Amino acid sequence: MTVLARVASRYLLPLFLLMAIAPSAQGAEVLASWNEGEAKQSIVRFVESVSKEGSTDFVPVPERIAVFDNDGTLWSEQPLYFQLLFALDRVKAMAPQHPEWKDKEPFASLLKGDIKTALSGGEPAIVDIVMTTHSGMTTVEFDRIVREWITTAKHPKTGRLYTEMVYQPMLELLTYLRANGFKTFIVSGGGIDFMRPWTEKVYGIPPEQVVGSSGKTKFEMRDGTPVLMRLPEINFIDDKAGKPVGIHQHIGRRPIAAFGNSDGDLQMLQWTCAGPGPRFCLYVHHTDAEREWAYDRQSSIGRLDKGLDAAADSGWTVVDMKKDWNRVFAFQK
Amino acid sequence: MTVLARVASRYLLPLFLLMAIAPSAQGAEVLASWNEGEAKQSIVRFVESVSKEGSTDFVPVPERIAVFDNDGTLWSEQPLYFQLLFALDRVKAMAPQHPEWKDKEPFASLLKGDIKTALSGGEPAIVDIVMTTHSGMTTVEFDRIVREWITTAKHPKTGRLYTEMVYQPMLELLTYLRANGFKTFIVSGGGIDFMRPWTEKVYGIPPEQVVGSSGKTKFEMRDGTPVLMRLPEINFIDDKAGKPVGIHQHIGRRPIAAFGNSDGDLQMLQWTCAGPGPRFCLYVHHTDAEREWAYDRQSSIGRLDKGLDAAADSGWTVVDMKKDWNRVFAFQK
Repeated sequence: MTVLARVASRYLLPLFLLMAIAPSAQGAEVLASWNEGEAKQSIVRFVESVSKEGSTDFVPVPERIAVFDNDGTLWSEQPLYFQLLFALDRVKAMAPQHPEWKDKEPFASLLKGDIKTALSGGEPAIVDIVMTTHSGMTTVEFDRIVREWITTAKHPKTGRLYTEMVYQPMLELLTYLRANGFKTFIVSGGGIDFMRPWTEKVYGIPPEQVVGSSGKTKFEMRDGTPVLMRLPEINFIDDKAGKPVGIHQHIGRRPIAAFGNSDGDLQMLQWTCAGPGPRFCLYVHHTDAEREWAYDRQSSIGRLDKGLDAAADSGWTVVDMKKDWNRVFAFQK
Repeated sequence: MTVLARVASRYLLPLFLLMAIAPSAQGAEVLASWNEGEAKQSIVRFVESVSKEGSTDFVPVPERIAVFDNDGTLWSEQPLYFQLLFALDRVKAMAPQHPEWKDKEPFASLLKGDIKTALSGGEPAIVDIVMTTHSGMTTVEFDRIVREWITTAKHPKTGRLYTEMVYQPMLELLTYLRANGFKTFIVSGGGIDFMRPWTEKVYGIPPEQVVGSSGKTKFEMRDGTPVLMRLPEINFIDDKAGKPVGIHQHIGRRPIAAFGNSDGDLQMLQWTCAGPGPRFCLYVHHTDAEREWAYDRQSSIGRLDKGLDAAADSGWTVVDMKKDWNRVFAFQK
């Protein structure tokens, strides 16, 4: 490095960093898929107020923590949580090694293609499927399995890769927040190790900024090589009242902005918006049966009932997908 | 922001960032408290090789993860782990509200100033003391208690604030690694919430990059306000085989460099250095009875026995504090 470059990086870099993050909300124009309206305005108003040096609502960069639910907030969750579709594909892939599944529910129905009967066992059946397909291998092996699936499997309705089923307006929002000094985290009920292999590429969120549900792992030596084995035991469920716990455990400070879409996110939004100083809480409301799906109070997946009432009571922003977004997915031009 | 500044930040910022992190190991001169020798050389050699674009050992910035133990690696741990000294101070502070402690061990002995008898109960006594003093309040209240203690309590031998008992050469190492694109994490057997209130100021490591042992917390509404209550229940012990588990849980990718000082760090070093590509593992060996403390294979605190053998077998760097550091603490000019 030349002396000039060294001087430049020492004196100019801080200056440019400052310009990049400080003066006022930069790049609201990146929110191109957001229609003008109260939802977009409330976002821009908040971001401008916390990032404007000298503003009474100014928040120092290290405290600009924003947390996002994943299923139904950053990508779709219909007709089933994508991770469950992954698990079902794994059951099929693993079936040749498990002849006993032919007579054992929920696997028997699954292998006949009868998902409805398989899942009729409710949560215990789902836990059984997830545990069976997500444990018994090392963390490195599971990572490889997820990477392979996520780059090849197709959504049953759109025929698209699952990573194409992410909401373009939310990608723009992540970019906008980061351009204004925010650190963005995922806080999802989904499996932490199911998300981490692809969130950096798709959302720009690195593995260390992903919080999620997890199974236990165990360190052991295998032929002299250390491995982490995935055990068929729940470690942590990052949903509902678990979300603030997961946030505290992983992030260690309270976010100033939270984004969700269901009752599973309610406590995360409550915890975030109960902190002192400026706070921002937002619900994505699925109102677009044509471009995506429409569901709320009665849905078994992504139910938004108590949350919708809490949003009204607390003055949180509610995004009407149909009205507020001019585009849902990037592939819908 | 002016047009010029906008253009400058768009086009020049990436350039300066690149210059700041990419070309070759920058700032080895910041390792001023390190004597010339194999330990310092091995660090610089590793950092140069992974950060030099085009080098066969080049590692992209997002994968430059470095993990540091805390007690005995970044700050001292004698005559007792500092967190235990904090807990003992808490027992004294809480005693007026607990008249029953006068007849109850280990509290009775502690309150008489007889630490040796109090701790003679071994781990159960220690767990009892820590649980009693670290739970029963909200996370916000505990944070405040730690902040107050860490800015006022003095070390029994040096009379210094505990945050002055950090190793100057290790602070320089943290700075050097970050200047070369590394993200630095703490991975400590100590309490995660005991460290987070001060690690950012002292080490430049933000709360979200601290991994440690923890108690369970519970989300609840208290007079309409959401709080996280600290429960008297162990959630996770981030020590020995727990360290790779904690790393996987919090960081989600394998570090390429690990720094420890005791057998409690052995699995973390094994896990780190067993990964593919360039890896760096280092043990701090306490050899300086004059400026700090000298202890290793026989010590009950910070025992370094198996780790010393593993380091020799595996070719890990071992820092001889007395020989390799020209200064231990900043207050020793």
